[in-house]
Amino acid sequence: MHTKHNRPAKAGKHLKQPGSSPGSLVFTGERLQDSVSLQLTQFTETSLRTFTETAVDALLGRLDPQQVNWISVSGLHDTAVVEALGSRFGIDPLVLEDILHTGHMPKIEEHDTYVFLTLKMLNMCADGSIEHEQISLLLGDWWLVTFQEKESPVFEVIRELLAAGTGRLRKRRADYLFYRLLDTIVDHYFVILDGMEDNLSQIEEAVLEQNGANISGKILAARKNMLSLRRTVLPLHESMRLLAQHDVALISEGTWGFLDDVRDHLAHMGQAVEHARDMVSGLMDLHMTLNANKMNNVMKTLTVFASIFMPLTFLSGVYGMNFEFIPELGWRWGYPLVLGVMAITAGGMLLYMRRKKWL
Amino acid sequence: MHTKHNRPAKAGKHLKQPGSSPGSLVFTGERLQDSVSLQLTQFTETSLRTFTETAVDALLGRLDPQQVNWISVSGLHDTAVVEALGSRFGIDPLVLEDILHTGHMPKIEEHDTYVFLTLKMLNMCADGSIEHEQISLLLGDWWLVTFQEKESPVFEVIRELLAAGTGRLRKRRADYLFYRLLDTIVDHYFVILDGMEDNLSQIEEAVLEQNGANISGKILAARKNMLSLRRTVLPLHESMRLLAQHDVALISEGTWGFLDDVRDHLAHMGQAVEHARDMVSGLMDLHMTLNANKMNNVMKTLTVFASIFMPLTFLSGVYGMNFEFIPELGWRWGYPLVLGVMAITAGGMLLYMRRKKWL
Amino acid sequence: MHTKHNRPAKAGKHLKQPGSSPGSLVFTGERLQDSVSLQLTQFTETSLRTFTETAVDALLGRLDPQQVNWISVSGLHDTAVVEALGSRFGIDPLVLEDILHTGHMPKIEEHDTYVFLTLKMLNMCADGSIEHEQISLLLGDWWLVTFQEKESPVFEVIRELLAAGTGRLRKRRADYLFYRLLDTIVDHYFVILDGMEDNLSQIEEAVLEQNGANISGKILAARKNMLSLRRTVLPLHESMRLLAQHDVALISEGTWGFLDDVRDHLAHMGQAVEHARDMVSGLMDLHMTLNANKMNNVMKTLTVFASIFMPLTFLSGVYGMNFEFIPELGWRWGYPLVLGVMAITAGGMLLYMRRKKWL
Amino acid sequence: MHTKHNRPAKAGKHLKQPGSSPGSLVFTGERLQDSVSLQLTQFTETSLRTFTETAVDALLGRLDPQQVNWISVSGLHDTAVVEALGSRFGIDPLVLEDILHTGHMPKIEEHDTYVFLTLKMLNMCADGSIEHEQISLLLGDWWLVTFQEKESPVFEVIRELLAAGTGRLRKRRADYLFYRLLDTIVDHYFVILDGMEDNLSQIEEAVLEQNGANISGKILAARKNMLSLRRTVLPLHESMRLLAQHDVALISEGTWGFLDDVRDHLAHMGQAVEHARDMVSGLMDLHMTLNANKMNNVMKTLTVFASIFMPLTFLSGVYGMNFEFIPELGWRWGYPLVLGVMAITAGGMLLYMRRKKWL
Amino acid sequence: MHTKHNRPAKAGKHLKQPGSSPGSLVFTGERLQDSVSLQLTQFTETSLRTFTETAVDALLGRLDPQQVNWISVSGLHDTAVVEALGSRFGIDPLVLEDILHTGHMPKIEEHDTYVFLTLKMLNMCADGSIEHEQISLLLGDWWLVTFQEKESPVFEVIRELLAAGTGRLRKRRADYLFYRLLDTIVDHYFVILDGMEDNLSQIEEAVLEQNGANISGKILAARKNMLSLRRTVLPLHESMRLLAQHDVALISEGTWGFLDDVRDHLAHMGQAVEHARDMVSGLMDLHMTLNANKMNNVMKTLTVFASIFMPLTFLSGVYGMNFEFIPELGWRWGYPLVLGVMAITAGGMLLYMRRKKWL
Repeated sequence: MHTKHNRPAKAGKHLKQPGSSPGSLVFTGERLQDSVSLQLTQFTETSLRTFTETAVDALLGRLDPQQVNWISVSGLHDTAVVEALGSRFGIDPLVLEDILHTGHMPKIEEHDTYVFLTLKMLNMCADGSIEHEQISLLLGDWWLVTFQEKESPVFEVIRELLAAGTGRLRKRRADYLFYRLLDTIVDHYFVILDGMEDNLSQIEEAVLEQNGANISGKILAARKNMLSLRRTVLPLHESMRLLAQHDVALISEGTWGFLDDVRDHLAHMGQAVEHARDMVSGLMDLHMTLNANKMNNVMKTLTVFASIFMPLTFLSGVYGMNFEFIPELGWRWGYPLVLGVMAITAGGMLLYMRRKKWL
Repeated sequence: MHTKHNRPAKAGKHLKQPGSSPGSLVFTGERLQDSVSLQLTQFTETSLRTFTETAVDALLGRLDPQQVNWISVSGLHDTAVVEALGSRFGIDPLVLEDILHTGHMPKIEEHDTYVFLTLKMLNMCADGSIEHEQISLLLGDWWLVTFQEKESPVFEVIRELLAAGTGRLRKRRADYLFYRLLDTIVDHYFVILDGMEDNLSQIEEAVLEQNGANISGKILAARKNMLSLRRTVLPLHESMRLLAQHDVALISEGTWGFLDDVRDHLAHMGQAVEHARDMVSGLMDLHMTLNANKMNNVMKTLTVFASIFMPLTFLSGVYGMNFEFIPELGWRWGYPLVLGVMAITAGGMLLYMRRKKWL
Repeated sequence: MHTKHNRPAKAGKHLKQPGSSPGSLVFTGERLQDSVSLQLTQFTETSLRTFTETAVDALLGRLDPQQVNWISVSGLHDTAVVEALGSRFGIDPLVLEDILHTGHMPKIEEHDTYVFLTLKMLNMCADGSIEHEQISLLLGDWWLVTFQEKESPVFEVIRELLAAGTGRLRKRRADYLFYRLLDTIVDHYFVILDGMEDNLSQIEEAVLEQNGANISGKILAARKNMLSLRRTVLPLHESMRLLAQHDVALISEGTWGFLDDVRDHLAHMGQAVEHARDMVSGLMDLHMTLNANKMNNVMKTLTVFASIFMPLTFLSGVYGMNFEFIPELGWRWGYPLVLGVMAITAGGMLLYMRRKKWL
Repeated sequence: MHTKHNRPAKAGKHLKQPGSSPGSLVFTGERLQDSVSLQLTQFTETSLRTFTETAVDALLGRLDPQQVNWISVSGLHDTAVVEALGSRFGIDPLVLEDILHTGHMPKIEEHDTYVFLTLKMLNMCADGSIEHEQISLLLGDWWLVTFQEKESPVFEVIRELLAAGTGRLRKRRADYLFYRLLDTIVDHYFVILDGMEDNLSQIEEAVLEQNGANISGKILAARKNMLSLRRTVLPLHESMRLLAQHDVALISEGTWGFLDDVRDHLAHMGQAVEHARDMVSGLMDLHMTLNANKMNNVMKTLTVFASIFMPLTFLSGVYGMNFEFIPELGWRWGYPLVLGVMAITAGGMLLYMRRKKWL
Repeated sequence: MHTKHNRPAKAGKHLKQPGSSPGSLVFTGERLQDSVSLQLTQFTETSLRTFTETAVDALLGRLDPQQVNWISVSGLHDTAVVEALGSRFGIDPLVLEDILHTGHMPKIEEHDTYVFLTLKMLNMCADGSIEHEQISLLLGDWWLVTFQEKESPVFEVIRELLAAGTGRLRKRRADYLFYRLLDTIVDHYFVILDGMEDNLSQIEEAVLEQNGANISGKILAARKNMLSLRRTVLPLHESMRLLAQHDVALISEGTWGFLDDVRDHLAHMGQAVEHARDMVSGLMDLHMTLNANKMNNVMKTLTVFASIFMPLTFLSGVYGMNFEFIPELGWRWGYPLVLGVMAITAGGMLLYMRRKKWL
């Protein structure tokens, strides 16, 4: 049940064919598994039952308004499943379209008989890039449907808690389950955020010591991850902020308190991303300056060598000339004299360099 | 009926003669086809008729308030046509002026008996630049007029759907057709956006591998396209946001739901453009740094060569001098000794370079 | 009547003496012509008369509330004229001060019996810089006063239209004339904007081909012009936006529609300026990168030369030494051998350079 | 009682296990001391008693609603203590979670029977980095609980004032004590701010004189500190601004005046941080330019040497050739002539350099 | 009475001891003169009397509610004076604290019986840096108190106008005097602004011609001054904007008109500062590019010399070798031939350079 396929951080293609009908259901993502898997979890405070079905009708037949009914859909390529669920719960075709459009921006929307939430699950891949998975939730009075692009272990922890039957989860209704699922995903953002901050610290060290290959590439990758997280967090936060101004009947007062906490977390993350952004520019600037410093040092070395040896070589060239009448060549002390002049010249250049602080 | 003439991304000249009368109809664009072509499409749920006319009066005579009347005008250089339509439907001269002014900013405006929408159709040209076409829509109770700069295939898909007669299109009124036309154009923006994002990925690869000619030029072109898309998307989004706060009688409740979806798409695009903008700066920074790195390597190579060979050449120069009394020259082992000293010097320099990590 | 004196784009000095009385009338600009010229244009739908006076009292005596009275003042250095007009129409001394303060920020203000508008006329000079002229308008019920720094042809087109007597201009009242004058000035901004955009295109070409002298200076000049236009457009737009929220009795409903159109134009320009600003930074970045590229090429050439000839020169130096015992010197094939070694060395360096892509 | 352990400026890990229950109390920070220390301070205008307890129940037994009860908790790793206090005062589990989550963003929240404030105490470490300590305050009607990560001397000054019994502190109720504790922490921010500004001045000097090692690293460190302070100040300011719009019953009118003053200070700091941010970018730019200037000078020196000595060395090489027929070699004045030519060449180069302003 | 002591632009230390009581009066600035000087100016339309006192009680005894009483305090180190005035006029201790805290942010606040204004007087020092002086004003019904850090000539012009007795100043009440003092200070900001803009023009010239020492340092100084002015102007503007939304009884309708004018000036300055900020970045960019250009030229020169003389020197080295069998050495035309080859090589290099546009 674990993710085998890592998708790159790039969002899916945005669109169905221009001009096609609104609400015409076309899956725009990549097909990530063979068949759609359907699971129904029914629970009350005292009972819990889980059904795995392949036919959507069989599953819909099992629904029981007396219990909390959580339908989990993994795999979106079979649009018939989405359509069947949509017609059973009276979902707007535009909402179904958004569920199937895997490149959609995160948002939360209140409708008459349900609340629609679509957002991204983020996973950090082994190579440090961020993997996206679109997850959509539909919350009704006594039912909750979750749509995932593939079977992934995101919600396993919640299933285990339901099975354990401890805590508030079994005692409350669908809206609380909705909150817990959302909270689980947002908690994963913090994992990404922590990874991102650790990564920035490592990059900072690498920049300051100027070792490690491809520092600039790493800075760009960090910037991409940061932009990716921001793009996931900001619209969701904004959308929750707008929702909080309404009086959503489907969500109880108590659950709102929890949702406010989630919103708080998103606000925190938005700020942390801004912080990271400033750090990334700072690191790039620093990297550039240190690079320029290194170049400065290289150039100084070159200049020191050139300015010392060029005059000396010239001098030796002069007395290497073959004129018949160069009186110095016949002097007894000509050679040591020239060597002395060379030593003085070199010494003078060195002194001059030192005064210019190039040595 | 396909576009043959690609105009550059630059918007048209902004203006008629300063000081000329408001509402004086002057076409400010480029004349893109010989004659203005007029088409009237009349439909109800059960019937559909299409008339192609050259005379505007003949066309106006065919109007039938019992049906949905879609007048499509291709080519704006004949201001008489625009004027005739304007006077038939009671359009404000300032609106007509905006229709003819092809450099106008996208906007949507509510008037008493009609809604006016002007926006840009975007096409990506073969050379990667973005081609603009101004499209204006006037929506009345039972009529809809569309103005295009030239005959272009933008709305073909809608005509085909009308002809097919399936879906909601024929069952609804002019406001729904209005939405579908707008939606078709906005969907094209996503094509541009996807192209832009693919392009950025390619540039990123080219930057990271530092091959491919003219990377900086490509980054600038990407920035221009991004600015172009932003300039098209942002004012339209803002304008629709403002319109949504009013109660526009001409647009039914049901159509508003669809228009909200379009607005959502525009918001999404606005965000994607911001994202792209950050990526573009990041790529430029990266490109600069990698360039500087390359320079560093070049300089290091130069310095390594200079610092090894300059002392050696100097040494050989010393013993190339023609002084009569250079005792070393007479030594039996002078030559191998000097060669040894040279080897040691070169080895020492190499060691020093390696310690400085220049090799 | 044409402008002979081009003032630089720099705004005038901001201030009278600190601490001086508010409303004390001091002209803060440059004296641009010898005498103040006064002109009164009176018109109704059927009549039009124009008087040119030198004495302000004579002019005030001719005022006729039954007609639209347009007083045009060119030259601001004679504060007595401004004062006389101010006291005739009951203008607040602070407003008169603003009229005389040529460095004032554009704004539009409603007062009890008049509307005050001050803004800049912009002209592009031959050298590409932007020339400012402050123009102020006072609109009353049946009168309109315009103040210009010098006799300039800005409003000639309006005078001609008045003389021709066609169009709405003669049929409407002072508020419509007010709008037309404002519109004429704003239309001139579009001329500047078009010039600015053309200029940016030219700079882009010069940057991409890296020819043409002083590209950086041109980029800076473009930035200055853009800042100048922004400084003119933004406060005026903001000010009109605020005014539109009130109910200004002096301006008729119909004229408001036209003023909204002007506001629209200003919004458009604000956006275009933002666009231009992004382009300017992009061009500067590009210019820097291409410059660095050129440097890279220069350095590579240098390094190629140095790394090929330094070893060769060293080698020739070795066999130029005068040691008595250098066995190679006596070899029959020593010279061709050394030449061969040199050729191989040079060839090896060239190969190495090519592999590093420096050739 | 003094801090021995300096934590780096990095915020703590953000999270408990994703998916765990809300309000499940897990301490997410570092354990900074062995045991939790509890202190109860009870006072009225006339009396003051301090109890140090190890058992939370014993402490809770001493509470007396007739007095102001200040419970100070140092060390957060024993969640039982926090839970016991929470249940005694009816605190929301989510609030308790926030208290234990040491990476939480500063905020102030009104609840029904208490006000919750969490913020950071900042200390500048010896190495110039900023140390964070999370401090949380719960204000009830007659009680106040403070939570610190470790025993630190932050509030000693307040304890001394309480002991002294002078001033308003003893005369007022818990809300005033709450204000004074908050004020003390915010005052410490100013110490950080002053240190930061002094640091910037020093960096500026170092940059301008271009001496001192690792200037770029210092600029980055300053930027980090600034970001750190901003991250502490901005959310708290925003949160207080929002709170001030409500009517918080627990806080008296008089105390609000003081809290407004704190808010004013935070606004001031927010502005100072923006200022510092601009200065930091300015310094980085300056540093880069001066660096480039230095490189320019190095390169000029190199070029001067090369352009003078290369022609001379070449000339000497020509007359070092061993051709049998070089007529000049036999001339009586050949040697001095060549020396003269060399001197003229060198002089010419120097002149040329001077004209180019490279000397 | 003229300022002798120039303080640097840095704001004073921000704080009293953390944890000290609010409203405990501690002067946080630098003591700029020996004693506090007190002056009382009483005037009506017909009379004017000025008293200089050393004892605050004597001065308070002279107050006369029938007249306008302007108390001017120069020097803040004697907190007893501030306290005495505070208790006489019923000033909040927090306000008194703000008066003594010379690093306070500009603001205007309405209290029940007085209006409190604190702001900075700016002076441009000879070295181009900006000197700050904190000035606070308290406006009551019939009294006005001004606090300055030292005796400075800021308000001399107002005293002279009062003495002259012309204009509105003597005819109006304390609120008008309050406005005039504020206006005088704000007018000084324009002097700074003009100086700043002149300075930017000079820097621009220096950058474009790349002469003048330490251009980068001047750009940084300009940026600092701009930040300094912004920090003074923005909070004051914001604060006045907020005040204008209330109905401040102490300020008459007529005076509000004048205060709006001041607010207008501050808005203007805010915009000018933004403008200057953009110019400063533009200048820095330009300076960097021109610097890089210069480096490019230096490098080209070096490369030209190296690529011409290195091959030539190598060639001369070849024929300087001492092999016994170098046939060319014995040729009759060997020497001229080699010289010819050298000339051709050099000519070829020059041609190549020219084609690359390096010459």
